Amino acid sequence: MESGDDAPPQPRLSRAAAYRLSQYLRCLSAPLTSPVSSLELARFVGVGDAQVRRDLAALGHLGQRGIGYDRTALRMAICRGLGIDRSWRAVLVGVGNLARALLRYPGFAAQGFQIVGLFDHDPQLIGQHHERLTIESVECLPQRTQELHAELGILTVPASAAQAVAEQLVLGGVTGLLNFASVQLRLAPSVQVVSVDLTIQLEHLAFLVQQQRFRFE
Amino acid sequence: MESGDDAPPQPRLSRAAAYRLSQYLRCLSAPLTSPVSSLELARFVGVGDAQVRRDLAALGHLGQRGIGYDRTALRMAICRGLGIDRSWRAVLVGVGNLARALLRYPGFAAQGFQIVGLFDHDPQLIGQHHERLTIESVECLPQRTQELHAELGILTVPASAAQAVAEQLVLGGVTGLLNFASVQLRLAPSVQVVSVDLTIQLEHLAFLVQQQRFRFE
Repeated sequence: MESGDDAPPQPRLSRAAAYRLSQYLRCLSAPLTSPVSSLELARFVGVGDAQVRRDLAALGHLGQRGIGYDRTALRMAICRGLGIDRSWRAVLVGVGNLARALLRYPGFAAQGFQIVGLFDHDPQLIGQHHERLTIESVECLPQRTQELHAELGILTVPASAAQAVAEQLVLGGVTGLLNFASVQLRLAPSVQVVSVDLTIQLEHLAFLVQQQRFRFE
Repeated sequence: MESGDDAPPQPRLSRAAAYRLSQYLRCLSAPLTSPVSSLELARFVGVGDAQVRRDLAALGHLGQRGIGYDRTALRMAICRGLGIDRSWRAVLVGVGNLARALLRYPGFAAQGFQIVGLFDHDPQLIGQHHERLTIESVECLPQRTQELHAELGILTVPASAAQAVAEQLVLGGVTGLLNFASVQLRLAPSVQVVSVDLTIQLEHLAFLVQQQRFRFE
């Protein structure tokens, strides 16, 4: 860790709490100077305000009763709690439409996520330029990932290629994977994986719509 | 509901249980005929096998002790429980790279999600063809959504446009939105929204990687 000896210890957060902190951060992105209340954060995220106060209390003494939270101080405390008070270097593998969308996703750079390498297996794509990066061959993955000091990998390859690519990234020193392929990756438990399965999201939406209809029948 | 009088009542599922059922479904997509055990499903999803048995028990009497679950029967029961034993019609608004990726996403059509309309505000895109659909103007949204009998809307527009587009979709009869814009939508409580904020996913990954490092320090 880069924090000095005087820095207070990093808070221990549950996965669910960390997820909510990210959501609060979205609410704090507006350029406002007035303090923010737990109620405003609660409404934004769709949880109770007592939950908000509990989550933020885990980050230290931040709010003032009756006044609220200073936006800048709160933003910094959340970023520190989540480990995004520094930049993270990521490589992206599989340069299709989804990857092109991610390369232009404004939120990544704004939160300190830098995409430092692009890889594909298609000889027609290798050598092409995208957003100041040159697409390289997946055959160079372990070595190049190491040279680029990438800690995270973003997988936008077809499901059939995902496991092999993930293993190459881990060989290159990547310890976290954002996986868009509809496949469960089998990796060492020290490697963290967040899967974004868009079919599951759409199925979940259909489920919620259907449940809602039952309420009115 | 279209189910007849003799159909058993739809199970009541929590959001979390519904989400896990979608994950089990991914495990069942392989073309195998042998029964599947709760342990296999548990390992695939990363939960305990007792949890799997509880989730599946909510769908009715499906498994046989010591043998497991018939894959086809289980797949059908899960689809019925989630409300995806029929097709859902969706329109997609904002035809950038992300939308183009979604249009080719194999999982959507396979699970019965049909994209029946494409909309954008850019005059240069309107009239273009994509995957057998013609891009139409967002100005026609409420009327065309109704004509297309769309129940779901997929929002791949910039954050600044998302609220206005969502309102137009709701006017057109859409009751569920899959929202890729980094903005909280304010809609009637009868409208269901599933937000896919990719920055939150990446932040969550950074958080998990950092937590993992602490364990080894």
